[in-house]
Amino acid sequence: MNRFTWKKVGLTLLALFLFATFAAAETNNDWSGPKARYVFVFIGDGMGLQQVNAAEIYRSSLEASGKEPSLRKLTLSSLPVQGMITTYSSNSFITDSAPAATSLASGYKTDNGVIGMDPTKTKKFTTVAQMAKAAGMKVGILSTVSLNHATPASFYASQPSRNDYYEIGRQLIDSGFDYFAGGGIHQNRGKKKDRPDLYDIAAEKGYAVLRDRQSILASAPGKPIIAVNPVLDGSNAMPYDMDRCEGELSLAEFTAKGIELLDNPKGFFMMVEGGKIDWACHANDAAAAITDTFAFDEAVKVAVDFAEKHPDETLIIVVGDHETGGMSLGFAGTQYETFFEKIAFQKESYEAFDKRIAAFKEGSDKRFEAMMPLITESFGLRLVTADERKALEDKAASGDDEARKVLAMVLSDREAEEIRRAFERTLQGEQERSKDEATFLLYGGYEPLSVKLTQILNQKAGIGWTSYAHTGIPVALFASGVGAEIFSGYYDNTDVAWKTMSIAGLSD
Amino acid sequence: MNRFTWKKVGLTLLALFLFATFAAAETNNDWSGPKARYVFVFIGDGMGLQQVNAAEIYRSSLEASGKEPSLRKLTLSSLPVQGMITTYSSNSFITDSAPAATSLASGYKTDNGVIGMDPTKTKKFTTVAQMAKAAGMKVGILSTVSLNHATPASFYASQPSRNDYYEIGRQLIDSGFDYFAGGGIHQNRGKKKDRPDLYDIAAEKGYAVLRDRQSILASAPGKPIIAVNPVLDGSNAMPYDMDRCEGELSLAEFTAKGIELLDNPKGFFMMVEGGKIDWACHANDAAAAITDTFAFDEAVKVAVDFAEKHPDETLIIVVGDHETGGMSLGFAGTQYETFFEKIAFQKESYEAFDKRIAAFKEGSDKRFEAMMPLITESFGLRLVTADERKALEDKAASGDDEARKVLAMVLSDREAEEIRRAFERTLQGEQERSKDEATFLLYGGYEPLSVKLTQILNQKAGIGWTSYAHTGIPVALFASGVGAEIFSGYYDNTDVAWKTMSIAGLSD
Repeated sequence: MNRFTWKKVGLTLLALFLFATFAAAETNNDWSGPKARYVFVFIGDGMGLQQVNAAEIYRSSLEASGKEPSLRKLTLSSLPVQGMITTYSSNSFITDSAPAATSLASGYKTDNGVIGMDPTKTKKFTTVAQMAKAAGMKVGILSTVSLNHATPASFYASQPSRNDYYEIGRQLIDSGFDYFAGGGIHQNRGKKKDRPDLYDIAAEKGYAVLRDRQSILASAPGKPIIAVNPVLDGSNAMPYDMDRCEGELSLAEFTAKGIELLDNPKGFFMMVEGGKIDWACHANDAAAAITDTFAFDEAVKVAVDFAEKHPDETLIIVVGDHETGGMSLGFAGTQYETFFEKIAFQKESYEAFDKRIAAFKEGSDKRFEAMMPLITESFGLRLVTADERKALEDKAASGDDEARKVLAMVLSDREAEEIRRAFERTLQGEQERSKDEATFLLYGGYEPLSVKLTQILNQKAGIGWTSYAHTGIPVALFASGVGAEIFSGYYDNTDVAWKTMSIAGLSD
Repeated sequence: MNRFTWKKVGLTLLALFLFATFAAAETNNDWSGPKARYVFVFIGDGMGLQQVNAAEIYRSSLEASGKEPSLRKLTLSSLPVQGMITTYSSNSFITDSAPAATSLASGYKTDNGVIGMDPTKTKKFTTVAQMAKAAGMKVGILSTVSLNHATPASFYASQPSRNDYYEIGRQLIDSGFDYFAGGGIHQNRGKKKDRPDLYDIAAEKGYAVLRDRQSILASAPGKPIIAVNPVLDGSNAMPYDMDRCEGELSLAEFTAKGIELLDNPKGFFMMVEGGKIDWACHANDAAAAITDTFAFDEAVKVAVDFAEKHPDETLIIVVGDHETGGMSLGFAGTQYETFFEKIAFQKESYEAFDKRIAAFKEGSDKRFEAMMPLITESFGLRLVTADERKALEDKAASGDDEARKVLAMVLSDREAEEIRRAFERTLQGEQERSKDEATFLLYGGYEPLSVKLTQILNQKAGIGWTSYAHTGIPVALFASGVGAEIFSGYYDNTDVAWKTMSIAGLSD
């Protein structure tokens, strides 16, 4: 063949390649209308459609108890445009938050554990947040978990491992972004606590580091700000919203403050993560997941209220990065019924109950009978004698609504036995816990009593779990505002980034 | 107050009521464009987004084993418009197929168990299929389960109970619809087999009742037809597609024949149900669910091919009526990995294996060791000695791909123990099975050995289940063709009926 024939072959192959590329792009990622000046990306970590719907059914169950079911949507699920998003990473159908957020932020797939780089860990991706900053917009990154955790990190960092918190924290400071808020900087002095404090470095580089409610609420535009909730858990995350105390800030308050700080004629990009929806689902704790979903939804509402004042310039996207826990709205034992109102008996998260267990183990009375009142107080679950059950049943039969509710929380023999076994294992302590397969399936590495209590309360409500990890089911996306219509359809998480960039008029 | 003031109050209240009504209607159910002449409603019974995605991941896993994950969509999930549909009935957040299909067919909610009537069981609803018939269109009702099962019944019958098969069968005959196909008429001689045969009555009323492949394929437009698959299970349903034998028809073949018989200038309405996706999920059998989803998808492809010839006149809707089983694409034991290719080791459905068990119990050797070869043959699961395992591991380490695959199917101690316990319970027989809560959670009323085998194979693949019943998670809808765009969004199953009627130009 001479070179002209080769040229023909080459051109034909190129044409075929281009055709295949465009034919494969089944969703429209190009927006040709007016650009969005204010862009909100809300990420519900671990928030699949089931987590959204669980919150909706819970609220509806409390409000319409006994009446015909109806569904009160959340603010986020009332946004006018919906999509379904595949979440797989470049090396697993089940993603973790690092490649999931990398796809949402940069438009590329990568391997599990990798932040903002390709699977070979050599090429760095540019994120929509970095593009926004380069274009003169202000940028805010908010999360209920630590500010250098995988999801927020994927908007400003490039690291081969999500576990390199210190290096990610350095990239946070170098980002020059205008507002970081929510949790703290995890491992701010390094894994061995032997490195210079990242909070000090941030201050040297010009960040105002604010760590109490009053100074955060009083802050005004000017210096870039790192606003840390005054209370943090052992992972430098905000506590669960159901455990929130006076003096703390809600995600909605951090979001409102962000709008106030970032609003300027050139616009802003804000990523807001509800990070502990995921953690609660890992621990199979529906009450903590649902209440953190409500807190996340309140933050969405702040953006929706802002958008009403700027309807032609604002884009709001709400999306999960993956589903966590294999949550189902139905359970074998409750069959065709649900009793989501039982979730309301839970007064604190598994995390808060873990602390109660630790205190209990320090006490002198370590009998199950001494633990049971704590269980009833925190989860509403009850052990009763045959006589007590009879008395409750009689009262309930004669129309005593309170007796009926209490009766519904009485443990069956099977449930009581499972809790007793978990209690015994909890008493054995972490170091004595067997790591065999059967034990892992029962407790997933969590405090056995806590995880069994939430699982059984959830089962009584009609909620099942299949995993302590993530799952691969596509998640829901909701959008409103400028260009939102191109978010309709069934497409990939990488497309979310391309659509966002197109609507905001951003590119590398 | 005088009557004029009352009039004012009344008018104000009326205005408020109308406003509230329209404000609550968040989705657009009105289509003002050209009407669809050919309408297909495909219902995947028990087919939530997870069932669709399980089929996609399974196919992708087989085709791209070892390579980077990518997702091969099904024909049905490639349709250009998607929606998310709430499924609750008027008395439960978890619907059964009767009110779910009633909502899809008529646009109204009703109680679990009720077909085509309101919850008081006094008012009959008119279905989109009946409206189509009244408007001069031809009507076809197809299902892989019996033709008088809840889903198909909801398109032509009104009955207080879905269990009144005989009465529903009578209404099938009275419908005057043009083509019924797939399964048979269940309880065709009544619950006690003492009533006139419905097949005879159908023939008297002018239906051609065809029960072999040849005469079904040879049938031509003219007389209305009831076309029954030559092989039926004990519930008068077609066998699972993975158990299909020569001489049977596929759902796609029944659909193609339907188009041929119904095509006419006034158009047609066709409802096609993949009914045993649901039954497989009740039994926690992913292989049967996935292969029946493929068979359902092949039927959708027949309609898509037809639509290509009539692009401006055809509407195709594919929707689940609810999710079944609380299926998750992820399992605690496999954590962040999936191995869907292991599903391919299953050679027959749980239903077919039940028959093997029955034969085994008739035999003389009832030791577990005698059952194990059958288990390996049908599910690929293996018990090996320590030496055998060592040999397999050595082979796999030296690159023997077959050894690696076999090794992946070796039962862990926990899995072997669960299967052994299920085997013992299966040997005890139905009448000896305890119905206590713990036993129900383990086996859900199914043949213990069969259900445990599919559950454990599914777990090894990374698929979990939480229920033997339905769940309340919203399901996905896919649509293409005339007016399809109004099916985009997050709305209720009742809206599906109103949208369909509007696009087809039908009303009561």
